[in-house]
Amino acid sequence: MSRHASRPAAGLVLVLAAVAMVSLRPGPVSGAEPARADGLLNLMPVPASVTPGEGRFRIDENLAIGGPGAPLGRAFRAAGRFMIRLAGRTGLFLKQDFLAAQRPPGEGGISYAYDRPGQVLPTEDESYLLTVEPSKIVLDAKTDIGVLRGLETLLQLLSADEKGYYFPSVAISDKPRFAWRGLMIDVGRHFQPADVIKRNIDGMAAVKMNVLHLHLTEDQGFRIESKVFPKLHQLGSDGMFFTQTQIREIIDYAADRGIRVMPEFDLPGHSTSWFVAYPGFSSAPGSYTIERKFGIFAPTFDPTNEKIYPFFDAFFKEMAGLFPDPYLHIGGDEVEGHQWDANPAIQAFKKKNGFADNEALQAHFNRRLLQTLIKCRKKMVGWDEIFQPGLPTDIVIQSWRGQKSLIEAAQKGYQAILSNGYYIDLCQPAEFHYLNDPVPADSPLSDFQKTFILGGEATMWTELVTPETIDSRIWPRTAAIAERFWSPASVRNVDDMYRRLGPVSVELEELGLLHLKNVDMILRRLAGGPQIEPLKVLAEAVEPLENYQRHEQTTYTSLSPFTRFVDACAPESLPARRFSKTVERFLAGKEAQDAADLRTALTAWRDNHTLVLALVAGSPALAEVEPLSLGLARVSAIGLEAIGHLAKGEGQPPAWVEEQRRILADAAKPAAHAEIVVVKAVGRLVEACAGTTK
Amino acid sequence: MSRHASRPAAGLVLVLAAVAMVSLRPGPVSGAEPARADGLLNLMPVPASVTPGEGRFRIDENLAIGGPGAPLGRAFRAAGRFMIRLAGRTGLFLKQDFLAAQRPPGEGGISYAYDRPGQVLPTEDESYLLTVEPSKIVLDAKTDIGVLRGLETLLQLLSADEKGYYFPSVAISDKPRFAWRGLMIDVGRHFQPADVIKRNIDGMAAVKMNVLHLHLTEDQGFRIESKVFPKLHQLGSDGMFFTQTQIREIIDYAADRGIRVMPEFDLPGHSTSWFVAYPGFSSAPGSYTIERKFGIFAPTFDPTNEKIYPFFDAFFKEMAGLFPDPYLHIGGDEVEGHQWDANPAIQAFKKKNGFADNEALQAHFNRRLLQTLIKCRKKMVGWDEIFQPGLPTDIVIQSWRGQKSLIEAAQKGYQAILSNGYYIDLCQPAEFHYLNDPVPADSPLSDFQKTFILGGEATMWTELVTPETIDSRIWPRTAAIAERFWSPASVRNVDDMYRRLGPVSVELEELGLLHLKNVDMILRRLAGGPQIEPLKVLAEAVEPLENYQRHEQTTYTSLSPFTRFVDACAPESLPARRFSKTVERFLAGKEAQDAADLRTALTAWRDNHTLVLALVAGSPALAEVEPLSLGLARVSAIGLEAIGHLAKGEGQPPAWVEEQRRILADAAKPAAHAEIVVVKAVGRLVEACAGTTK
Repeated sequence: MSRHASRPAAGLVLVLAAVAMVSLRPGPVSGAEPARADGLLNLMPVPASVTPGEGRFRIDENLAIGGPGAPLGRAFRAAGRFMIRLAGRTGLFLKQDFLAAQRPPGEGGISYAYDRPGQVLPTEDESYLLTVEPSKIVLDAKTDIGVLRGLETLLQLLSADEKGYYFPSVAISDKPRFAWRGLMIDVGRHFQPADVIKRNIDGMAAVKMNVLHLHLTEDQGFRIESKVFPKLHQLGSDGMFFTQTQIREIIDYAADRGIRVMPEFDLPGHSTSWFVAYPGFSSAPGSYTIERKFGIFAPTFDPTNEKIYPFFDAFFKEMAGLFPDPYLHIGGDEVEGHQWDANPAIQAFKKKNGFADNEALQAHFNRRLLQTLIKCRKKMVGWDEIFQPGLPTDIVIQSWRGQKSLIEAAQKGYQAILSNGYYIDLCQPAEFHYLNDPVPADSPLSDFQKTFILGGEATMWTELVTPETIDSRIWPRTAAIAERFWSPASVRNVDDMYRRLGPVSVELEELGLLHLKNVDMILRRLAGGPQIEPLKVLAEAVEPLENYQRHEQTTYTSLSPFTRFVDACAPESLPARRFSKTVERFLAGKEAQDAADLRTALTAWRDNHTLVLALVAGSPALAEVEPLSLGLARVSAIGLEAIGHLAKGEGQPPAWVEEQRRILADAAKPAAHAEIVVVKAVGRLVEACAGTTK
Repeated sequence: MSRHASRPAAGLVLVLAAVAMVSLRPGPVSGAEPARADGLLNLMPVPASVTPGEGRFRIDENLAIGGPGAPLGRAFRAAGRFMIRLAGRTGLFLKQDFLAAQRPPGEGGISYAYDRPGQVLPTEDESYLLTVEPSKIVLDAKTDIGVLRGLETLLQLLSADEKGYYFPSVAISDKPRFAWRGLMIDVGRHFQPADVIKRNIDGMAAVKMNVLHLHLTEDQGFRIESKVFPKLHQLGSDGMFFTQTQIREIIDYAADRGIRVMPEFDLPGHSTSWFVAYPGFSSAPGSYTIERKFGIFAPTFDPTNEKIYPFFDAFFKEMAGLFPDPYLHIGGDEVEGHQWDANPAIQAFKKKNGFADNEALQAHFNRRLLQTLIKCRKKMVGWDEIFQPGLPTDIVIQSWRGQKSLIEAAQKGYQAILSNGYYIDLCQPAEFHYLNDPVPADSPLSDFQKTFILGGEATMWTELVTPETIDSRIWPRTAAIAERFWSPASVRNVDDMYRRLGPVSVELEELGLLHLKNVDMILRRLAGGPQIEPLKVLAEAVEPLENYQRHEQTTYTSLSPFTRFVDACAPESLPARRFSKTVERFLAGKEAQDAADLRTALTAWRDNHTLVLALVAGSPALAEVEPLSLGLARVSAIGLEAIGHLAKGEGQPPAWVEEQRRILADAAKPAAHAEIVVVKAVGRLVEACAGTTK
């Protein structure tokens, strides 16, 4: 059946990553660039090999898709979704009834084929060959999962010219660099219902990720139904948990998109919610309630209590039956030890067994858990704290604290995945994550050792997000991480990544993701009406505080509102990035157009303040925005003045520079849990004025 | 436990409906007015009695809510959701852990109480008393469902001043006018998944509706899992159906919000999807496939086939066990008769039984179905076609063809609900639906007969909507219908309804409804990027074609794209309505401010065309928008010229007027399945110029 034949030579023909960034005009209201207007491809992740062809495959209402087999399989369903999305983007009334039958079309259609159904396993082949010619499109893969990956590539190739929509002629040979390309979602701290999970699975599939890691239990909530121990979810979740039926639906939904679902049960710490039902399993007496605050808490399972092991046997047997994935994550992070240290029986146990410290005790606990997992035929995964002596090498280490443990693990023959540097909850720029490589060019690992690095996972911890805001913290930056995991290591052109990130972000919206549209929604609620333009203008110059700084501003709990201005701000402002780029270009070349663009943006930001004040007057929830808006106005005024000086070639005396630095430093201070991110670029303009006086 | 005591006298103290419309400035980008800035209440539906008090109940982080009973009941959960929404709107970090415990607060809190848990039945008491004083808020009801209704009112009372957020002092005594306040969603023609249904249930609860009517089977799809006859959903749905678990979750979700779920199985017509599995039950030989087109189709159950009755016995027994509601809807509409007429055996059966026409045959079918429903202990509901001799008076007639059948039904002692005039899929203005009364002032019914009118249902047929667009066709207009069903008949001030509709629309967004935010999403997909402002400007002067006109433009199927410009246009443009209102005011008073406002809007619309053209150039899917945009530019130019003449008091000769009428008539023609709705108002300006020449 398959036309999966000779592949092109392995040489990488990258027409994407090599191109320079196109000219981007900054503007106060703009978000990103229109797709395809520039004639460049917007593929993300960049395929392993792209060979441009000649001519265009024209799309009209007669377009049909066809492949092998009955209308029941994964590829058939994926092809149906492909056609719906294609019709949605083009507005074409496609004549084919692609839900009823997909017969291999004649000349002019899309043909897909595969050798065998794929298994949703990290070892599975996801490669594909895609050739677009003016007269036909052929997609060929070893597995139907490869077909899915190729369909996403084809959809990203959609282009338009004056004659209509088309796919550009191209030959693509593609396969992933890493087998494990994951997104972890923490449903413990803030529960994320099934519809949130499903739309993010669709987002993952669009950028070829293949592991959804569900962090199911936390101090703040036990989020999975247990029929064996129902008190766990009944008492530990405030009623917010996945039923087993819902989990099965999620697993099926993910498998239909070639994505594994790996569950995590974080043990022995981060486990307060288990003890609401079973206080006797903890290491200290007393009753427990669901934790509302965030941080590292004392409640910890008691490894010396022999009753916990049959409990885990029964519990993991149930969960192993629910989750088909061969891997099961047992957490293992941040055991803070207070309960163990304060318990004389535990101290005696440590002494008796010769455990020098709590790490050794945790290793003992993990060895016991491993016996349980072996009975369940599951491979153990854990955060890098579990990387302790005495565990066999078929466990997988998920490195969150740094590359060090990742490298050590691989050197000792353990498989490992990287999450350090992919903490998307910390509101860092896509560039930071993008350049973070599980196997960097200067890796000390041998080629053989490198094969133990399975890939990585972006981690979406949910202290500060709700179902309303989580998508905006995941997307579009996770698409850049997905490219790091899929594309060749040499694909590292940051400007080109950003060029493609804007269009990809818009495309992700068709999957129901709320990352773009909820910005306006949150601002409308704050403003009490639809007039939110001044807030949008402000938001594009502002970002949430990075890392853990927001927790220094106030004590958040799982019941706090995440509906404030900061929650509407994108983790990374693409307009602010473009502004900074234009500042650099202006300083380098003093082009009049760049000066004009900067003036336009700065004038809009400066004049925005009075408009913001009018909104603040009617909305007490917006009061905290006032200093931020005032700061932006002051910074913008400085920027305008500096450009004026620089345009005339006038230097400025040190006193002037000092004064501007003082104002900028003041404006750089956090307000409303956010910060003005264009301060730095304006500072460069000021310093340039200083420089001219030297 | 309850403080449900003496109620205020029945006199209606309506401070809401009596107020005049506040000054509204038209503007090209504006949607509606900010809430509460005008000091008026934004309650929708208007309560039966509102007595303003003195002073304000201040809201701060110490606000607590409390009521009777354990943290398990419906009121407890609703109070928790209330607090989350309140925190969301105010940004306040409330200190109470309202998910763990709601103890009756001391001075300064919100106390709720009720006599007994309510039943989700049309006969249930939903009344409540709500008193807000500066020092406390007391919400008292006979049932917990009444508490839910009162909490929605309280949330709508949220106001702000320079000191912060507050609830204004007020005494409200409220109860619904009609017991049956429904929304029908057709999940047959375009399937709407559970998350769509759930967010719309939340929207219904926010405006105090209490019946969700699910139209589950259609020619285009059989949307409910049957374990007894699994081929029905397996072959009849393209895999798009509710599992029984999902339906139970929906029913529970609705009941938790005091909302019934009534299922409809449309019989004997509109039933093609049943025959994919069971062709032998139809009235003509052959095999069947799921219908893709829309309209009235021939396939109809064969009432003379005795095999269908035990089938229905078993099927409805299963469904009766799934749906707890006492009512079950059997459809009954639009039996077109071709299959019956062409079948000699059916003709012989009619003759033998003395059935004069197909209506009589359908009545026979319904009488047989009634026996099945009686066995299932369900009351029959049907569209007005089922109102035929021989059915007992405990069936309920749902009138869709006109008020006539409603009145006749009530006169003959049948209960009836009105849907004629509430077809929200037809994109008519809220005003039209709002003034359509199930029991109008000039009703020929006696007071006793009027008691047979249970209420009404808005009907959301889904030929032309998908999960992406359905919310925008339901909301906010359905809030106006909800007010018609709940509020006293005397509440009919259209301008005041519109004053409140804008803020209510924004409030509905917090429930996850996509009616506002998906406008931009659809436009971004069309434009291939985030620069959509010109399309938004165009959209505010444009509405989808009303009634069934879109079907005259092309042949839509269930696989057609509903992602075009028309699908982003609101069914009713509130900015266009405000423009028309300003034209009226200008013509009446020739105020300079009105002229200036009109000029601003018209200039923006006129100058928008070149910006639209730039977007069209990059997006073939937008090509159809060009004539619409050009038409708006021409109409706006005419409007500007007319205002100029009128401002100077200059009359215009008949030739000028004729020429403008010709251009306006041309611009009024449909384009892109939409129409320019400001043509009429500009026409009034032109006619005024003509008038001045007389």
